[in-house]
Amino acid sequence: MIDENGILFILSGPSGVGKGTVRRELFKRANELKYSISMTTREMRAGEAEGVDYFYRTNEEFEQMIEAGQLLEYARFVNNYYGTPRKYVEDTLQDGKDVFLEIEVQGAMQVKENFPEGVFIFLFPPSLEELKNRIVERGTESQELVLRRLKEARKEIDMMDAYDYVVVNDNVDTAVTKIQSIIQSEHCKRDRIAKQYKKLLEDD
Amino acid sequence: MIDENGILFILSGPSGVGKGTVRRELFKRANELKYSISMTTREMRAGEAEGVDYFYRTNEEFEQMIEAGQLLEYARFVNNYYGTPRKYVEDTLQDGKDVFLEIEVQGAMQVKENFPEGVFIFLFPPSLEELKNRIVERGTESQELVLRRLKEARKEIDMMDAYDYVVVNDNVDTAVTKIQSIIQSEHCKRDRIAKQYKKLLEDD
Repeated sequence: MIDENGILFILSGPSGVGKGTVRRELFKRANELKYSISMTTREMRAGEAEGVDYFYRTNEEFEQMIEAGQLLEYARFVNNYYGTPRKYVEDTLQDGKDVFLEIEVQGAMQVKENFPEGVFIFLFPPSLEELKNRIVERGTESQELVLRRLKEARKEIDMMDAYDYVVVNDNVDTAVTKIQSIIQSEHCKRDRIAKQYKKLLEDD
Repeated sequence: MIDENGILFILSGPSGVGKGTVRRELFKRANELKYSISMTTREMRAGEAEGVDYFYRTNEEFEQMIEAGQLLEYARFVNNYYGTPRKYVEDTLQDGKDVFLEIEVQGAMQVKENFPEGVFIFLFPPSLEELKNRIVERGTESQELVLRRLKEARKEIDMMDAYDYVVVNDNVDTAVTKIQSIIQSEHCKRDRIAKQYKKLLEDD
């Protein structure tokens, strides 16, 4: 279909809901999808490459980009910045390719503010009880941390209203299939393509 | 997923675009979908049954239903009324089943007015040129009729703006797959299900 731009899809959801698993399975199936490459100030490690694993920048360069509004979102972890460069996303979309970004809820809200034309998908736990189990089973968390995470999750679930779609992650295969349907149907949205079709009518 | 209502999907598009073929292929694949049963004043034929092929009503009964706003759309062909009864659609949706209605553009616009919460899909010809070929190949139309149909089609294509989705019918299989994606992704729409999910949170 005619000169269509790509769409930015953002997958987010509460801690422990399985965003990473769903994203990895999606990328196994949907190889036309581009994963958004992050920018970071942490040092390049052996085997990594610029523009493949990350875009590597100095602290000063990163802060200039924040200042200039060139990041769709960013956060600081362990003394390093991580963020999503707007230019890479926009260039890829203009190339006609969809970009997929899997990200924590806080980051998704920043993207929503800076790129509202993205399609926001909220990955939902089958129930809060099950979310609790999943966090416990991970085995890396203290009881206190579990309770704090749950409290956070409740807050995050209230954030659902900022999203376009909600996909329940009761089963990874089903969740991935639903996300693929969302990607396909978004390309059929009338407001996205009416212009191109009307052009086709004029060309007749 | 929790007590979800069905969704009314309306497939429409210009004459000759292949709505019927797409609908039949869709129903072969998606057997959980309910086809909207029409109401008519024409006589029941051998082998037909009330509530299966049509709901059969007298002229007077039909006109009373029009009067009372009990039809989502109706039209008169060859001295008989044909229409879509609101009650059958609403009962089926409340039963949690999706209803699928394939209909001409004029009828779709009536449904849009009477049931705006429906999801409107516009089936689009790959190009107007190909639409012309298809009408000609059908072989049942005079040249004059073909030209008139084409003119109508241009008008109908301008009506695209009233639809939620546009699916190009360059290939029946692809078009049906896209419609199935639309059906699945509509069930993931946040505004449809946020309430149920928030209820789930309260129940925890």
